[in-house]
This record gives sequence, structure tokens and C-alpha cells, in this order.
Amino acid sequence: MNYDDVIREFKKGNIKMYALDGLIGSNKATEARRHFLEEAGGRKYTEIANTSLDFDKVCGKNAENTIGAAQIPMGVIGPLMVNGEYAKGEYYVPLATSEGALIASANRGSAVITQSGGAVARVVGDRMTRAPLFKVPDIDHARMLAKWVEENFDEVRSISDSQTRFTKLESFLPFFAGRNLFLRFSFSTGDSMAMNSATKASDAIASFLEEKFSWAKLVSVSGNMCVDKKPSAVNLVLGRGKSIVAEALIPKELVETKLKTTAERMADVCYRKIYVGSAMAGSLGGFNAHFANLTAAFFAATGQDLAHVVEAANGLTMMEESDGDLYASVTLPDVPLATFGAGTSLPTQKEALEILGLYGSGENPGDNCKALAEILSCTVLAGELSLIGALASRDLTKAHMTLGRSKR
Amino acid sequence: MNYDDVIREFKKGNIKMYALDGLIGSNKATEARRHFLEEAGGRKYTEIANTSLDFDKVCGKNAENTIGAAQIPMGVIGPLMVNGEYAKGEYYVPLATSEGALIASANRGSAVITQSGGAVARVVGDRMTRAPLFKVPDIDHARMLAKWVEENFDEVRSISDSQTRFTKLESFLPFFAGRNLFLRFSFSTGDSMAMNSATKASDAIASFLEEKFSWAKLVSVSGNMCVDKKPSAVNLVLGRGKSIVAEALIPKELVETKLKTTAERMADVCYRKIYVGSAMAGSLGGFNAHFANLTAAFFAATGQDLAHVVEAANGLTMMEESDGDLYASVTLPDVPLATFGAGTSLPTQKEALEILGLYGSGENPGDNCKALAEILSCTVLAGELSLIGALASRDLTKAHMTLGRSKR
Amino acid sequence: MNYDDVIREFKKGNIKMYALDGLIGSNKATEARRHFLEEAGGRKYTEIANTSLDFDKVCGKNAENTIGAAQIPMGVIGPLMVNGEYAKGEYYVPLATSEGALIASANRGSAVITQSGGAVARVVGDRMTRAPLFKVPDIDHARMLAKWVEENFDEVRSISDSQTRFTKLESFLPFFAGRNLFLRFSFSTGDSMAMNSATKASDAIASFLEEKFSWAKLVSVSGNMCVDKKPSAVNLVLGRGKSIVAEALIPKELVETKLKTTAERMADVCYRKIYVGSAMAGSLGGFNAHFANLTAAFFAATGQDLAHVVEAANGLTMMEESDGDLYASVTLPDVPLATFGAGTSLPTQKEALEILGLYGSGENPGDNCKALAEILSCTVLAGELSLIGALASRDLTKAHMTLGRSKR
Amino acid sequence: MNYDDVIREFKKGNIKMYALDGLIGSNKATEARRHFLEEAGGRKYTEIANTSLDFDKVCGKNAENTIGAAQIPMGVIGPLMVNGEYAKGEYYVPLATSEGALIASANRGSAVITQSGGAVARVVGDRMTRAPLFKVPDIDHARMLAKWVEENFDEVRSISDSQTRFTKLESFLPFFAGRNLFLRFSFSTGDSMAMNSATKASDAIASFLEEKFSWAKLVSVSGNMCVDKKPSAVNLVLGRGKSIVAEALIPKELVETKLKTTAERMADVCYRKIYVGSAMAGSLGGFNAHFANLTAAFFAATGQDLAHVVEAANGLTMMEESDGDLYASVTLPDVPLATFGAGTSLPTQKEALEILGLYGSGENPGDNCKALAEILSCTVLAGELSLIGALASRDLTKAHMTLGRSKR
Repeated sequence: MNYDDVIREFKKGNIKMYALDGLIGSNKATEARRHFLEEAGGRKYTEIANTSLDFDKVCGKNAENTIGAAQIPMGVIGPLMVNGEYAKGEYYVPLATSEGALIASANRGSAVITQSGGAVARVVGDRMTRAPLFKVPDIDHARMLAKWVEENFDEVRSISDSQTRFTKLESFLPFFAGRNLFLRFSFSTGDSMAMNSATKASDAIASFLEEKFSWAKLVSVSGNMCVDKKPSAVNLVLGRGKSIVAEALIPKELVETKLKTTAERMADVCYRKIYVGSAMAGSLGGFNAHFANLTAAFFAATGQDLAHVVEAANGLTMMEESDGDLYASVTLPDVPLATFGAGTSLPTQKEALEILGLYGSGENPGDNCKALAEILSCTVLAGELSLIGALASRDLTKAHMTLGRSKR
Repeated sequence: MNYDDVIREFKKGNIKMYALDGLIGSNKATEARRHFLEEAGGRKYTEIANTSLDFDKVCGKNAENTIGAAQIPMGVIGPLMVNGEYAKGEYYVPLATSEGALIASANRGSAVITQSGGAVARVVGDRMTRAPLFKVPDIDHARMLAKWVEENFDEVRSISDSQTRFTKLESFLPFFAGRNLFLRFSFSTGDSMAMNSATKASDAIASFLEEKFSWAKLVSVSGNMCVDKKPSAVNLVLGRGKSIVAEALIPKELVETKLKTTAERMADVCYRKIYVGSAMAGSLGGFNAHFANLTAAFFAATGQDLAHVVEAANGLTMMEESDGDLYASVTLPDVPLATFGAGTSLPTQKEALEILGLYGSGENPGDNCKALAEILSCTVLAGELSLIGALASRDLTKAHMTLGRSKR
Repeated sequence: MNYDDVIREFKKGNIKMYALDGLIGSNKATEARRHFLEEAGGRKYTEIANTSLDFDKVCGKNAENTIGAAQIPMGVIGPLMVNGEYAKGEYYVPLATSEGALIASANRGSAVITQSGGAVARVVGDRMTRAPLFKVPDIDHARMLAKWVEENFDEVRSISDSQTRFTKLESFLPFFAGRNLFLRFSFSTGDSMAMNSATKASDAIASFLEEKFSWAKLVSVSGNMCVDKKPSAVNLVLGRGKSIVAEALIPKELVETKLKTTAERMADVCYRKIYVGSAMAGSLGGFNAHFANLTAAFFAATGQDLAHVVEAANGLTMMEESDGDLYASVTLPDVPLATFGAGTSLPTQKEALEILGLYGSGENPGDNCKALAEILSCTVLAGELSLIGALASRDLTKAHMTLGRSKR
Repeated sequence: MNYDDVIREFKKGNIKMYALDGLIGSNKATEARRHFLEEAGGRKYTEIANTSLDFDKVCGKNAENTIGAAQIPMGVIGPLMVNGEYAKGEYYVPLATSEGALIASANRGSAVITQSGGAVARVVGDRMTRAPLFKVPDIDHARMLAKWVEENFDEVRSISDSQTRFTKLESFLPFFAGRNLFLRFSFSTGDSMAMNSATKASDAIASFLEEKFSWAKLVSVSGNMCVDKKPSAVNLVLGRGKSIVAEALIPKELVETKLKTTAERMADVCYRKIYVGSAMAGSLGGFNAHFANLTAAFFAATGQDLAHVVEAANGLTMMEESDGDLYASVTLPDVPLATFGAGTSLPTQKEALEILGLYGSGENPGDNCKALAEILSCTVLAGELSLIGALASRDLTKAHMTLGRSKR
């Protein structure tokens, strides 16, 4: 069929939306789908249309049934001084958001960090996980299967390795629940986020085990103990993606002049709001002020999987008075990240990573992604410092106002 | 200073990035900041630059320190038949994502729903919350303060009302923790997400209380019992934003022909993966397959706050065999949403809402946003159906392969 | 049959253990069962036999298939100065435990409290809950059922009232999950713990609703949202049993002379161990040092349901430096308690309550039980003070030792 | 001083309660303290006095400030057929409780299990844990300390070994939180519960590390990541004490004749109540019906630490229909247990263990305690079967009643 025939049949309903790409290419299919919606809606979607994305590259890889693109404003904070093992120096960090004041606030925190000589950032854990779930006849079979995997881990690893290039099986943990067995596999990932390759490897291992042990039945290649994109304790305890800590010592003077408060007050707000408050709220892992805001904006800018914000929102913020100065740290146990693959190669996202000098893989695979993790953690720290500072100083301001008023 | 002077001083470091907007306007400031980064990086960021956003409108309202925009591919699923109280009929639902296969998968689920006659969707709860935290001298003062607010709630409500237009204080709950008191205020919100207006109103109430009771000291206008953008039980139990349920009965034939499996198998995968798996993972609220994927893509397309994906990822999926048919439901207790304000008025996001016919506020304020909630819940249901179906059928496929092989 | 015949047939296996009571009375049945075990084991169980319990009263009411009694050492702490609304004055608090050092440690904390002028204790919430679970055809039926109960609450209350004497239905909350509906009923309870009467009342309501609405099917009179004897967030957020706060201000001198440390150190241990530690552990509600130790010993002594220790272990301890003094508080949201009924009327447990002057119901039903709650909370506070103090001073001791050593 | 002098001075308040033991021995001190309370209360506490405990043995080891003993009725269930690796055969299981119907209900479950050929029980994990918490200067020192322990684990183990006889250090996991480091040590324990020896060993290791690394400051030998007697995810995920699974296949006929229901109905109650209900309740680990009831009664009878019921209440119950039969299992990840030491050697508790043939340590240390774990898990399974069965059959009964009524 030629283009006009396809469009005609599509309008008649004889061709499905998703079938257009195969017939006329994704760029034209994108246009056709959008036109279809425009006719239905009686209006033009010119803004969604306004994109330089090449859908022939995008479709299948990043999206399907495309009609154009969403645009989210991108700004930067910086210079942010990062004293990492992989990221060293001052960075301008791109953030994409539609929430006013977020970037401005983080920029203030960034300035405080940089003027304090920067924040130390360390990647203390690094792995992607998948946990296939098997139903077996009984607990003894579950133990037998777990034991076999443990004793034949080299063979299992070789099955995994045959499936993937950068993603390498490192270890596993078995979890028993009646006649269900979860095998939580941990992979090293290089610079990619590696969810897909971890799934592929896990699937191959599962198929192998199913074939070897006819009584073992794969229920799901993901048994919700991985845990991908859901709140969970297992990720908090064992970590997933990058586990990162950032910390800075903010001198007394900076706390007072830039944040308009004191270390003691910030420590008090942190203790009452973040620890007592989140404990009262029944929070599991959410002992921070707004990790999610910064990670969401960072993820949107740099092409990370936005659903992973669920995991990255977990972690602890600490603010402590230390001889008048402020010790501040953020601990993020569960941040899936990539500088390579998936959303990172989309045009604007690639450029955002280039602003950081971290697009793709470098000489030592994995280093770029760890550097990105370090920068993210310092960005999150900047966000916490600014928000807790604002809350603490409001308090101070109020106190002054009240004092002033009472004098009148 | 004229433009050239400003740029020169900026390059010298005498003008801060964020100060440019006030001097040369945000559109030129955006360009200037981007050029600065381009010079530093020795490359052009033409894709980030490629946006029709009017930064004079965006800056301050949606972002600061802008340099351009991030573009995320947008596709649609549909027609998705929604049998809501507010949304009735077939919809094409825009989703923005960089994760391949997600839209295609949800589209399959959508087709199954629509061919089954649609999904029923109900908003079972609707409120925005803020919980200021007060430090008081002791538990008796905490009780006194809580009691006063209870007994003088009309006065408290009028303070709130004076601050906001659509956001109205409805109720409150006090929570005691030693000499700390949390007052969790619940607001009705119309069509806006209302986090900011709820904060403004809470701040006014808090200031009033601080002034009235000199011994009451506001620690933070958000005491982490709200809970905004963090994992928590209180939102799961009491709800936040929209609380939504969607359900559909998928006939046996459709399960078999479209999802290539059976209701019984899907129910088994759901039970073992979602309930046993998430229980084992120590999940609080994450009893689903991938709510976060669908909500993240829906949020990015329609201008919601991406950090709220953390909350929207909570909820329960149920798949049950019912005389051979499949009963499927999703329950989402905590979905902040808007059709009005913040990110919804950005150009592409506005158009995405227009595709749904739900941009802004209609005749009955609040109805558009509830309709959006209903559509979202059906979209999430589509995603769950497709993924659980795929997991269950893989299993079936494997069984067939094994059977076939054993015959040889 | 006469006694000898019964025993002969029992030994032959023709009479079941549990059938003995009906034939020869529980006291003789207890003996017969014990003898049976003694013959099987080839030894005597004289210690288990050594009890003055009257099994004709005990069996059916407190236990079945009895063979004797377990003895747990009982000690006291005190005098403990309690400044409650219901309990006022100095108390000797009975504790039954087999864990050495626990009573001694709590006694030290008690002395510190009493020398500080006592602890303030307040019951900030009081209710027993049961949450029947209904399966209904769909979400609309779930809403209809919840709405009917709301609109006809007086009728529902009268059904409840017809079943119980002291336990009165106060309110309810509906929770929706697909086509499941949980109705969480809250009851006032007087001086009994009221789990059984709350169950009875809930069962009557459920039967009524099932009959009225033929499509409503009771799945379980307890739908695990009550929540009885299981870890949960709903109890933490909404409270269950007695919700209690106790607090004390310990003067600097007492912290130093009795606890051998400083308020600052205790606050630091509390912050790092209880807040950072429990946050890291993924604790839901367990933000304390050892609530469970004190409540278990208190429960065993006073005849509470030992399984309720699971609920009573939840709560927050706060230790804060306040001008050199120590502010300490405990918040217990979920403590089922009784001074009347069930285990409280067993001989030793009754006496333990009499030591506190709180056995049974007094003039104002409910007051005794609230007084008991106040005393318990101060006992728990004593335990926290002593343990955190010991941890903080060990630290101090070590510092001194190291200093001393370094001088040599 | 002679006895009369001591008593006189004690009554005058010149001798403290706890000082009596050193002066007149614990048996007389127990009497003196009780008399003191009797005089204060104006009544006799003859029941508390009625004990054959030798307080000269008890005091210091199991309790202090003793005044007598609490008596809790003890019954048995059985014969319970246990198909364990360590416990094989039929057992009569002692349970001490004051809650009527519990033993009778469990006994019904026990009969069902035994008539089905018994339950399989397996200990899938076994360790005691302690997690000292160190404050260090910064994250790099935290990593350095963790790394040193890892690289010098043999040396660390030898320090531990020098402190304890049966408790042996097996492994450790480091957890990073800003400048705090938790070292979670795991020990094998033989037949004792080993909390005290694990603490002693951890303390010795901590002292060693503090001395070796002057910048490492022990905050607490227990940093709440152990986690002892508090709700937590880390124990759920990594296990603590005994991790146990028990399972049984109950034939269709037995479900119908003994439990008066069907496997299908029991599976449905289990799914809706235990999984949907506990998920809705925000339960972390409490995916069961009433583990706490059975473990509390088992613990009280056999001399376990009652506060550990908090941990033992965690776990999953599964009930699944399997060709008409019922597959039932319980998974308990976190059950601290002993057959040796602490409360197990008290007279009645020792006899209770002797009824099971499991007092103390046998030829292979650790085997008795594992056998006890297996029996406990089957007891818990019995409790779950009976309760879920009762809930399911009530439902059935109601259905019959309704049917019957509608026929009239």
C-alpha cells in the first residue's frame, strides 16, 4: 500500500494505530496518529508536534504509538563542587521540572555546598537485581533448588553471561516462603541501568532451571522481591542500583549568612520533622525532606526511568550541629542510574549528560555512571540543605517578628 | 545595562546565573545560560535549545535558571473505554516515556478492557493534606492546642479560606508524639493539585496559632506526616490526593485469545508475585506489578508533579478467576492530580490534557480532575492486565515447549 | 462412668484429652492429663502440678486441656511516681519475667523518675477495633454498603449494643480494595480489653448486613485491618487499645549522679540508635529501645494477653537535652489493656492488680484501666531511661578508661 | 546485721528493696518485700507467694526485687505429628495462656495435621544478631572501618570466640548512614537464644575497634539494626533467630469433616484476609492470622523471652487449594529460641521442655533447639489451620442458614 492508502484504511479503522509504523515508517506514523487525534478533537496539537525527535529511532526503543513529545523546562544548578571518587570538581547540573522554586532552592543549597569547599560523595554499593519466583512442590524442593544454584553458581553465571555484554551476575540470595522460592540475583552493570539485561539473564537462568528440574515452575521472572519501582524494605536493607552517601560540613558563618539560621535549629528541624515525623507517619525509608523532588528533576533531564523515582525517594538525611558548624549528609540506598542506553540516548537527555561530561561509557566502564551517582547525591544534598534551612529560618524570622511585636 | 553589558559581566562572573532574568528577561537569560554552558563544554546543545517554550512565562512559575527543555517521546494508548462517574466513553490516553515496550504493553491491556466493555472507575476519596508540626512545652499543651483547634474549627477554617480560592479546609486529625503535635489538615482542591495552596493555608493557620499560643512553636509547616512525596503508611491508610478504584471483568475468551493465558493462571501469578512476593519484600503499599510505570508516563505527559509518582506507586492489584472470567481491579489510595495550574499549563502538557478533553476547570470545578483520576486508574489497570498476562502466558508457552520437547 | 472407668478408657485412647473435663471435672482432668504425660515421659512434672489454680474455673475461660501452670518470677519496681489523670502517686509495679537484669534496670529508671518528681502520663486515645471484611460484587456495591452503614449508624450501633454490656460502638471507617470492603469499627471498652465483645458485636453487625444485603458476603469477621496482634501501620496511625504518652524532665544532677552520663549524650544515643538505627532497619513503629521488654513483663504480671505485646512494642521514645536537663518521653499508640475479665481474674494476676489498687472496675468504669495505662507508660519510660542511660554512660566509661590508659 | 535488724531498717526506709538480697538472701528478701507490699495494701498476696521457686537461684539470673511468681494456666495440644529433620514423631505441646479457646482451637488444628500424616518442618536459617553502632568522622572513615573488619574477620572472630562458649561469630554486614556505621554481626548459637552472649561478644569487638581506631566511637552496642524485640524489615529480609517453614497437605475429606469447610473457601479467606487485608493495613511482615497467639503461649510455657513474641509474630501463612485438598504452610523468618539457659531452666519451664524431650543440650549442640523450632512451627500451623477453618466455615454455615431461610 502507498501512504495515502494506508492513511485511508487507518481512518476507516482497518489499520490499527500501532500497525502504522510497519507500513509507513514511524515518523509518518507519528504524524498520522497525531492528525487522527486532531481530527477527533477538532484542534491542532502543534506543541506536541514541535519536536526534532527521529521517531524511526525512538519507536520500539523508547516508546510506541508516538504522536510527538512532551517538553519539560530544563534549568541548571551550579557550580556544585563535588568531591567524589569519580566526579571531581565543579558541575552545572541539569534539572527538568515543572515545579516552580525547586531549581532556585536547590541552587541555593548548591552555592552553600560549593562555598563550603564541596560535598564528599561515595558510591557504597552498586548492583541491579532481579528475583525470579518459582513454585515448587514443597519446602524441600525449594531448598534443593536454592542449594543447587549455590553449589553450581559458576554454571549459573555462565548462563547469565551468555545473555549480556556489560551486565554480569555477581551473587544471589534465596528467600523461602512455603513452597515458593525467590532467587534474588545481583548483577554488576557497567554504565547502563541494566534492568532489561538483568531480566534477560534471569529469564535464561529460570528457563535453564525449569528444564533441569521439571518440578520447578517459574511463576514470574520478577517475583516482586527485586524490587523494581515499588516501595520495599528489601531494597532499603540490601540496596539496589547505586547506594550513595554524600556529606558536607557547612561552616557556622555560611549557615548564618546564606541559610539565615543556625546549625542547631536545622538539626532540630531535621530531628523533629524527618525522624519523629516520618516515624509517626509510618514511613519505610522516607526519612528525608524531599529526595523525590531532586531525583525526579535529575531523572527527567538525564534520561533515567522516571518510575525509578519511587526507589530513589528512599533514604536518610542527617543534619547535626558540630561545634556550631553544620554536618549534613544524605544516604540513598536505592538509585538505579545509567549514562548509557534507554532514555539516555534521546537527544536532549544525551546533551544533559554531556553538560556533565558523562554521556555513554568511558575508558573504564561503570565510572561514568558512578560519577553521575555522586553528582546526583550532592544535588539531593543541596535540595535538603536549602529546604531544611528555609524551614528553620522561617522559624527564626517568626521568632524575631514575635519579639519585635511584643516590644511594641 | 544593555544586553551586551549584562552578558559581558555575566561571563566575568560578576552577575549570577539566576540574576540574568531580571536584567534581560527570561528568554534571553535562557539563551545566555545555555551559551555559557556551551562555551564551557566546547559543544552546542541544540536539542535542549529546540523548544517553543516562552521562558518569560515559565520562569518562576515552573522552573528557574532555565537553559531550554527536555523532550520525552509521547505516545497514546486507546481507545480505552472508561465507565466512570466523570469520565464516560472512549479515550486516547497520552503517555510520555523513554522506556520501550511500556506504551505497547499498556495499549494491549487497553484493548482488552475496551473489548470487555470498559472498566468501571470510581474516585472513593479526594483531599490534599498538610501537617504542620509544633513543638510545645509538654503533652498537656499538645492536647490543649489540639482541643482548641477542634473546638474552634470554624475560625481555623476561615483563616484557611482567606488564603485560598479553590482549596478549602475540610477536616483535621491531631497526632501526639511526646511534646510534639502534628495537625494533619485535609483540604478539598477543585481541579488543582493544591499542594501550594494547602501549604499557604497551613502556614497561615500555623502563624495564627503561634501568635495565639506563645508556647506553641512551629517546627515546620510540613512535619512529614502530610506526607508529600515520601513512602508512608499514613497516606496508604488515610488516603491523599485522589483515592481511586478501577475494575473490569474480562471474559474468558478475551483472556485466552488476547492475553494468551487463563484467568486462573493470572490469578495465580497475581497472588504469588504481588501478594506473597511483596509481603516477603517488606513492601508497604506496593502490592502491584508496575503502577509506577504507568503513572510516571501519564504524569510526564499531562504535567503532573513527577515526584508524586512516589505516592501514586502505592496500591493493590487484584486478579481473580470468576467462573472462568477474570475479575481485575486496581486500588490507588494516593494520587495527587491536577487539570489546572502548575505543570498542566505548559504547552505540550496542556495539549495532552486537551486530547482527553480535560484541560483546566469546567462548569463544576473538580469534575475534570476526577475524570482524569478515573482515566488514570483505567490506564494503570491496562498496564497491570498486560504485564500479568504476559507473565502468565510465558509460563504457558514454556509449558507447551516442554510438553512438545518431551514428546520428541 | 465413674472416675476409674474414665481414666481407663482415656488411657486406652477411647476418650480424648479434651473430653475429660466434661466427665470428671477440670481439676481431675488436669491431673489425669498430666499423669498421662508423666507416664509417657517416664518422669514426674511436679512443678507444673504445683499450683493452686482451680481448673474448674479456669478451663473454658482461660485455657483448655490444662495440665497445671507455668510459673514466672514476679518482682516489683518502685516507688514509681506517676502524675496521671487517673493514677496519682507512688506505685510499686509488679513485673513478671525470666530475663535477668530487666527489673533491676527498670527499677533504676523508676528511681530517677521519682526523684525527679514523677512522670506525667496521659491517655490520648482509647478504643478497641474490629474490621469485618466483606466481599461484594463490585466497587459500587462496596460504596453502597459503606454509605448505608454511615447513614444508618444509629441502627448499626443498636445492633452492637444489644450484644455487649460495657463495649460500645463509637465510630467506623470504611476501606475500599477492589470488590472488598473493610469496615473498621471502634468501640469504647470500659475496663475490659474487649477484644471478644468487639468481635461479638462485629459479628452481629456483619450478620445483619449479610441478611439485609444478600450480595454482601462476610469473608471474615476480622479482615486483618483491625489489627489484632500483628505488626501494622493502621494501628500506629489510628491507634488501638490505649494510646498513651508519658514524659518526665530529669534534672541535670540526677542524670549525672544516677545515670552517670549527661543529657546531651543520652539525646545523642537516642537520636542515632533509635531514630537513625530504626530507620535503617526498616522499622515500622519500633522507634524505641525496648518497649517490648517492659510491656511483656507488665502483661505477664497483670494478666494481659501476652500476644498483645506485638502491638505494645510500637511507639516512640524521645530524649532531648533541655538546658542541661533531660526531657524524656514515650509515646505508645497501641496498648490493649484490661483490669477486668480474661486473664486479670486469675489468682496471681488479680493480686498483681491489687498491688496497684486497680483490680476490676471502680465507680467510674474505665478509670481503672486508664490508670493502669498511665502506670504502664511510666514503667516503659523507666525502662527506656535506664537502658539509654546505660548505653550512654558505657560510652563515657570507655572514654575515661581510654584517657586513663593513654596517660600511662 | 541479723534478719530482724535488716527488716526493721528496711521498714524504716534505710535499706532499699534491692539491697535485701545481699543481706538476708533472696528467699527471705522475697518474703520481706512481699510483706512490705501487703502491709501497704492492707491485704495478703498469698497466690503470688504460692511458689516453689528458689529465689536464691532465680534472683540475678532471671529476675530481681522478687516478691513471688505469676502463674499462667498450662495446657497441651496433641498428639501433633511433626516430620522435621530434628523433631520426628508425635508430640504433646505445652502452651501457657490466659486466653480461653486458644488451646482448644490449636488442638483441633493439631488433630487435622496429625490425621493428615503430619506437617513437614524445616529450619531454613539460624543465627542471632547484634549490630553495634559507631559514630565516625565521615563516610570515608566508615568505609575504612567496615573494610578493616572485612579484611581482618579472622581476628575479629577470635575476639568474639574468646568471650563465648557456644555462640560463634559467623559473618557480618556493614550498613552506612552518613557518618554512622552499623556492623550487623551474625552468630551461631547452639541451643541457647544467645542474645546475651552475642551482646558480650559484640561489646568486646566494639571495644577492640574503639581502641584500635581512636576516631571510632561506639554509640551503642545495639544500634537498633539487630533488631531485638522491635518490628523491623531487616529481620524479615535477613532473618533472625530461627527461620522456619512448616507445611502440610490436608486431604479434602479432612477439610470437610474436621474443619467443616472446603479448601477453596479457606484459600479465599486466606487471600482476602491475610494478603489483601494486611496489605491494606500497612503491615510489615504480619501476613498471618495469629502467629502471636501461638508463639506467646509456647514461649510462656517453655521459658522463652516473652518480648521476642514481637519478632515471632512476623511471617506468612499460605492456604492453597490443590486438587480439592488444602496445601497450608507457615513461614516464620524471625524466632529467637532456646532449650538452654535463661528462662528455660526455671522449674515449670524446664518440665515443659522435658515434656517435649528437649530440655538443655544434647549430643549435638543446637539440635534440640532446632527440634523445638520445628515443633513450634507446626504448632503455629495448627493455630492457623483452625482459625482460618473456623472463619471459612462460619461463612459456610451462614450460607446454609440463608439458603434454609429462603426456602421457608
